[in-house]
Parts: sequence; structure tokens; C-alpha cells
Amino acid sequence: MATRAEIPPHLFVVFGATGDLMRRKLLPALAQLGSRGALRQSVVLGVGRSGWDDARFRTWAREALKAAGPKAEALSRWGETCLFFQSVGQGRPEDYRALRARVEALEREFEIPGNRVFYFALPPHAFAPTVEEVGRSGLHRGRGWARLVIEKPFGLDLSSARELNARIHAYFDERQVYRIDHYLGKETVQNLFTFRFTNPIFESVWNRDRIDHVQITVAETIGVEGRRDYFDHVGALRDMVQNHLTQLLTLVAMEPPAAFEPEAIRNEKVKVLRSAVPVRREDAIFGLYERGRIEGAEVPGYGEEIGAPSRTETFVALRLEVANSRWQGVPFYLRTGKRMERPLSQVVVRFRAAPVVLFGPGCRAESNVLVITIQPDEGFDLYFSVKSPGQPIRFTTERLHFRYAEAFGPLPEAYETLLMDILLGDPSLFVRSDEVEEAWRLYAPLLVDRPEVYPYRAGTWGPQEADALLGREGRSWFPA
Amino acid sequence: MATRAEIPPHLFVVFGATGDLMRRKLLPALAQLGSRGALRQSVVLGVGRSGWDDARFRTWAREALKAAGPKAEALSRWGETCLFFQSVGQGRPEDYRALRARVEALEREFEIPGNRVFYFALPPHAFAPTVEEVGRSGLHRGRGWARLVIEKPFGLDLSSARELNARIHAYFDERQVYRIDHYLGKETVQNLFTFRFTNPIFESVWNRDRIDHVQITVAETIGVEGRRDYFDHVGALRDMVQNHLTQLLTLVAMEPPAAFEPEAIRNEKVKVLRSAVPVRREDAIFGLYERGRIEGAEVPGYGEEIGAPSRTETFVALRLEVANSRWQGVPFYLRTGKRMERPLSQVVVRFRAAPVVLFGPGCRAESNVLVITIQPDEGFDLYFSVKSPGQPIRFTTERLHFRYAEAFGPLPEAYETLLMDILLGDPSLFVRSDEVEEAWRLYAPLLVDRPEVYPYRAGTWGPQEADALLGREGRSWFPA
Repeated sequence: MATRAEIPPHLFVVFGATGDLMRRKLLPALAQLGSRGALRQSVVLGVGRSGWDDARFRTWAREALKAAGPKAEALSRWGETCLFFQSVGQGRPEDYRALRARVEALEREFEIPGNRVFYFALPPHAFAPTVEEVGRSGLHRGRGWARLVIEKPFGLDLSSARELNARIHAYFDERQVYRIDHYLGKETVQNLFTFRFTNPIFESVWNRDRIDHVQITVAETIGVEGRRDYFDHVGALRDMVQNHLTQLLTLVAMEPPAAFEPEAIRNEKVKVLRSAVPVRREDAIFGLYERGRIEGAEVPGYGEEIGAPSRTETFVALRLEVANSRWQGVPFYLRTGKRMERPLSQVVVRFRAAPVVLFGPGCRAESNVLVITIQPDEGFDLYFSVKSPGQPIRFTTERLHFRYAEAFGPLPEAYETLLMDILLGDPSLFVRSDEVEEAWRLYAPLLVDRPEVYPYRAGTWGPQEADALLGREGRSWFPA
Repeated sequence: MATRAEIPPHLFVVFGATGDLMRRKLLPALAQLGSRGALRQSVVLGVGRSGWDDARFRTWAREALKAAGPKAEALSRWGETCLFFQSVGQGRPEDYRALRARVEALEREFEIPGNRVFYFALPPHAFAPTVEEVGRSGLHRGRGWARLVIEKPFGLDLSSARELNARIHAYFDERQVYRIDHYLGKETVQNLFTFRFTNPIFESVWNRDRIDHVQITVAETIGVEGRRDYFDHVGALRDMVQNHLTQLLTLVAMEPPAAFEPEAIRNEKVKVLRSAVPVRREDAIFGLYERGRIEGAEVPGYGEEIGAPSRTETFVALRLEVANSRWQGVPFYLRTGKRMERPLSQVVVRFRAAPVVLFGPGCRAESNVLVITIQPDEGFDLYFSVKSPGQPIRFTTERLHFRYAEAFGPLPEAYETLLMDILLGDPSLFVRSDEVEEAWRLYAPLLVDRPEVYPYRAGTWGPQEADALLGREGRSWFPA
């Protein structure tokens, strides 16, 4: 972690401060950083449409932080001194003028030299209007720096992403914009980089000569929960594939950057996306969950859950190719879904079979498989063949196993490290405007001409058509 | 294991049957195989100079088998019916005629169709005279097959090995000769082959592009024990390096054979030895142990142990190159010694450092290391870099760990599987005459012009000059 001396005093303004993201992720992370003294001077101003005042907001925050367990009291104490609220009601110009006055008042009170973070914990349709209100009110022009943090999804397709970028760039330079993908904390990205680039035995096999294919799975057991209107509008392709899974893809497939520096890394990520071929409709399977059982409990189907019939995809599996010299001919299979058998985020690298069948054709070993697990329990497993004792020769697949938590204890929360990067002005792990646009380009064919949506039972790994997607090439999803 | 039906009835004739090898290795293995019914019909005839009879031999065998623990009784029961003894006294022609008569009588009695194994558990100087007595007496010409098994060392240098081969070939075809290297049981060799050739991620980095160097260590804690005359005459280079360590070298360095078949494997082993460059005198360090401590106990120096001053080497470290397209420029460091810190047989493969120093020059990760352990506790370990949690970036070396015994329980005894191969007529793992001669060729310069012998303290890893052998190239022995 950076030392607190490196983080200049600042005001952290959260738009959508009474929402789900603030309650579950942002507030606990801010409270952790604030209460353990990681920040020199940080004042958090919640902004929302509710007519709340500071006291009401602090009561709400105290409730939200109770989930943090034994640390809740310390976190609440932090809230009593650092947490404020300003309503913007219907978001009229006079509301934003009042907000600006409040911001300036807090800066005077706490002797903050005008550094401002604007964190948009908002639904996507509110991004553009809010950035324009911020801009028109002059909030983004303080005496210090201003940074804009935006959550996914960034646009709903290539053209809306371009338009959103343009509307943001009217008030914020690209280097002031932090498009967050909370899914990949700094530790996870650095672990992946370390794994790939500092271990020559893996580095040397990371290419089309040695790898048969790659699978990327992000599975959830939850359904739509409190986000039904939003989710039913966007679906899993926009909600998960275009951002989280595509981010994972770029980290797995990118060339080594010249240095571990923001623009060097983001340049390489964009390069991979440019080499990727837009997904053909016949290479994508959409699914929609029906009633089923997860961990022994009956769960409703999607239609029951949202209270109306729907054709929104809650599951996507697709096949993608990266046409560059490292990956030509190696398929990447991406898969995500709600109401799956268990929560799981992992990258599976299946290596080509050994060229030599030394012990006779009836005696073939499994090919090596590397499984990089991101959630739950970050780590990796390497599957390899050994001989079973005795004669005749038979092989067994064994597993070498590594878990970060076993080696090091619990890892820092992803959000905390991402917030630190924003405050330090390090955009390495945030998504640049061209990266967002290239990612949308990959999925444009599926947005124009939606694939059929197949039903799957909740608590499974999706429709059988997703198995057939690999099966038609003689492959299968790695046992999950 | 092969089924007993595949092993034809046979007489197993052991020359040197009252010696150390018979007592510690051969007898227990024969008794295990016999008593668990692995062999259809096997009669063991011990041969020696002592004027023992069957009863005396069986009493001796019973004592020897007591070390087998709870199974000793079953093993002794086997001995009561299957174990015989014939003295050859001073080894005169009439003694061998009597031996032949005894062999034929046992074959009649047990209805054995003339298949004979002649196992020479003899000191090396007795090999040639004994094979000639066997030949002159016609013992090797029964109605069935005859196989000759010879222990190491096979000759004392290239010319004596050639001469011994010639004297053997006067009576036995090469395909009847089984030069045993008890050090490498069938399981170990097959494990190594499986590891190398059926795991493409290892197979693909097994070359000069990816490997920096290889270390092969065979360390003992024992001194000369009961073999002082023999050992003081031959030294560690002939006793260990020319056979055991060179065998390990060929298995690690050889190309994949076309099939797992005897001649295919032995052809590849010979090819590696032909590509190896004879060791230069300045690339070899000899050592001789002095008084020291092993596992807390004081042990005497070599001179005290044999009761006379000596310049025989009890330790050898050397650097060797294999000048072929896979290994050009990759040094192989071989090391063996008596009275070392602990017993250990292992192959260490150190990979080249990662080409990319992504996180800045002050932040370099260790290169990957693969350690293949043969004794004790066969298995392997892969050392790799991960990032320690938090910032700034620091690396930690972690270890992936595999042990055959943890996965499968105890492995079969090396000797049992080798004996089965002899009885099945499978010479894959035995050393062919040209292989023996090529191995001697590698060490000829050191036999002609012996390197200086440096003292080392018992209980250490040898003289410091052995560290300097690697140190002068910026390398070091892998922490043992």
C-alpha cells in the first residue's frame, strides 16, 4: 500500500450514495481506508435524490457497516466525522449549485486544497446527464485535481459508448476518467502478470504452439436481485461479457508490456482487442434460467423473479479468436451466467497433447491443464500426468495446487486497492476509452442480430447448447 | 506387474550368495516375489566358496530376512522349499562340474525346462573368471534360455570394460547379458519418462532455450562400511559416477525414443553419451572425508575407517557438456559423495530467468527450478514466483509439491521390478555393452590424470572447491 503521505487531502463525492453499490462495496472500502489511517485527509460527501441529511446518511451507513463484523464500531466512528450528505433532488441546475456550495464549504472547513473525486455509483442511463450537470455547475473545476470514476457498463453498444465518451470528454480529459471494473482488483491483475511474465516455464508455453484453447468462466448463483429493471434491459452480454470477461481475456492474452506503467499496459490490452475477431452469431449461445435448485434450495425461474416473461439472456457462452501471431487458431471460450451451480471465476488453459505417445496408442495421457482461479479462493492448479505404480503402464492425472490465501492469509479487498489507485492517480487498471470501444466492437454482431435464447435449469452450468459449442470441435468445458 | 503365467519356470543361480548384496537386496526381493506367488516356479540356488549346505544357507537366509519385519515368517517359509546351496570351493573345474550336476538335478526334481539365470553378486575382479568357468562347464547351455546378470562396476576403465565384454561374449550373446544398475528401479525410470514425455508443458521447455543448467546429486551418509578393500581400489568416480550418475544423466538428457522398447531406449541413451564431451581435469573436483558429525553423531575420517592413509576419492563433483542440438551450452553438474549431510538423490533443473523484468530492475524474480527427487521420498517440486500481497511489488518463491507415496502409497522395491524384467526377458533398463563403454569414455581423462583430492568434513556437502566449480560461472548448488 502507498503511504498516506502520498495521498493528497481530497473530497470524495459519491453520486448515487444511497444505492446498492455504495452500501455493499464502496462505503466499507472507504471506511476501512479512512479508519485505519491510510488516507491523510479524506472527506466523503454522499450525493443522492433522497432528501436525506448528514445524520440520516450516517445512520444508514452505520447499518450498512454492521456487516463488517467486529470492526463495525471503528468504521462507524470514522463515519461520524468524515461522512456527509447533500441531496440534489430532481437534479435541477439550482440543486447542483447548492451541491457546489456544499463542496466548497467542506473544503474550507477541512482545509482541502480542491482535489475532488466524482464517483458515479449510478445506473448507466444517469452517467451522461450527471456528468453534464457536474460540468455545467463547474464542480469539476476546483483549485486541485478532479477525477471521474464510472462503473460498468460503459454504454450499451459501440455507438452509445462513443457518444458517452464524447459527452464526458466535453468536461473531463481522458486521463481524468477512471472506468472501473471492480471485478479485477489490483492484486488479481498483478498476480496474473507475475504468474505469466516472471515464470519462464509458463511464459514459454503461453502461445499457439503449446496451448490448445482457453476457457474463461464467470458464474454467479444469484439471480437478478434488486437490479431487475436494469438487468432485464441490458442482459448478460452487456452486463458481464463486454466488461469483466473481456478484461480477463485481455489480461490472459496480451503481450508483455514494456513496463508496468498505465499507458504501456493499456496499449497492450487495446492491441489484443484489435486483433480479436468479432464474434459470429453461430459462435454464441444465449440462455435464460428456469426454476431449479441451488445448494439444496428451490429457486424461481427468471420470468417468475421479474414478474413477467422475458427473452433477456442470463447466460452467454461464446467462442472468440484472437488473430495475432501468439494466438492464431487458439479458440477462447467465454462463459457467464446467473443461477449457476456455484459461484466461480476462473481461467482454464488446456495445453496441446504431448507429441509423443511413447507407451503405445492405448496408453494416452491427459493433456496438461492450468486452472487460474480468481474467485472463490484465488490461486492456481496445474494438472499433469504421472504413472500409476506397477505394470502395465497406466497414467493418473494429479494436481499441483496453490492458493494465495494459504500462502499469505486473506488478500486485500479489491475495492480498497482500486480506490487507492484513483487517489494516487494511477489509471493502470482502469479501462481507457479506446479499450471500451474495441470491446464493444467484438460483440456488435450479437447486438445487431441476437442469438436464440435457450432455457436452462437454475443450478446447472447453462443450456446443453453451450456444451455443444465446444463439443462440435471435440472439446468440453473443464470440470467446474 | 506381469502375471505369473508369463514367467516360465526357471532356476535362479546366485554367485556370491553369502555376500552383502544377496543378504540386503537380492534375497528379500526373491523372497517377496516367491512368497506372494508372483512366479510360477522359481528355485533359487545359492553358489559360494563357503562349504555350506542347504540347511546352513537357509538358517543364514532366515536371519537375513528377519529385517523384513512382520512378513519375515512367510518369507522364511518360502525359503524352506525354494532355497538351495552349492559350494564351488576354490572354483576348480571339478567344482563347476559338480555345480552343473546339481543344477540338472534340481531341474529334474522341480520339472524346470532348463531356463537359467546366472546372477553375479560378486566383486568385479571375479566377473571374468567366473563367466569363463560357467562357460567351460557348459552351464550356460541348458535346454531353455540362459541369462547373465552382472552388477556394477563393469570394468575399471574403457579398456578393461572392453576386455570384460569380449570375455563375456565368448559365451553369452549381448542380448543374454543384463548389466544391472540397481539404483534406478523400473518405476523410477518410467516415472521420469512419464514426467518428461507425457507432460507437454515440461516437454516443451526441456532444452537449451529454456534451461540454464542441470544438477545431479547422489549423496550417501554411510562411509565405506564392509567394502573397504574394494572401494579403496576403485573410488567414487568408478563406483558411482560412471554408472549411477551417468545413468541419471542419460535419462534426463535423452531424446524421446520411438517407442518404449528395449533397443529404442538404449539407442537413445547411447546417443546422448556419444554427444557428451569427456570431462576435462579442471572441471572435476575430488574430495576425501575427514572426521565430522552426521545427525549429531561423531564419525571417523576415511583414513581412520580403513586403517591407513589414502588418496582415494570419496567425493566427486564435475561439470559435463552434452554437445547436441538440445543441450549445447547447458552444463550438467554431477556430484556424489560418502558421509554427506544427508542421503539424497535428486535432479535439479534450473530454468533461465524470465526475459522480461516488467516491474523494474530492482524487482527481479527468482528463476523457476524443478527438483526431481529419487531418494528419499520420490517425487518432484516446482519452484515459482508469486507476488506477495500489497504494494510495492515484491516476489516470493513458492513451491508446488508432489510425492508418489502421498498419491499412491509405498512404491514397489526397485529390485523386485528389475528381477521381474530379467525373468520376462526385458532388457530395457539394463545397460548395453556400448553404453558401458561410452560412459567410461567420458571419464577417461580423469582416470589418466587424476585431479587433486581435497579434504572435506564428514556431514557436509563436500569440499568448498565443489562450490567454486559452479561459483566461477555465477551458479550455486541448489539448497539441498
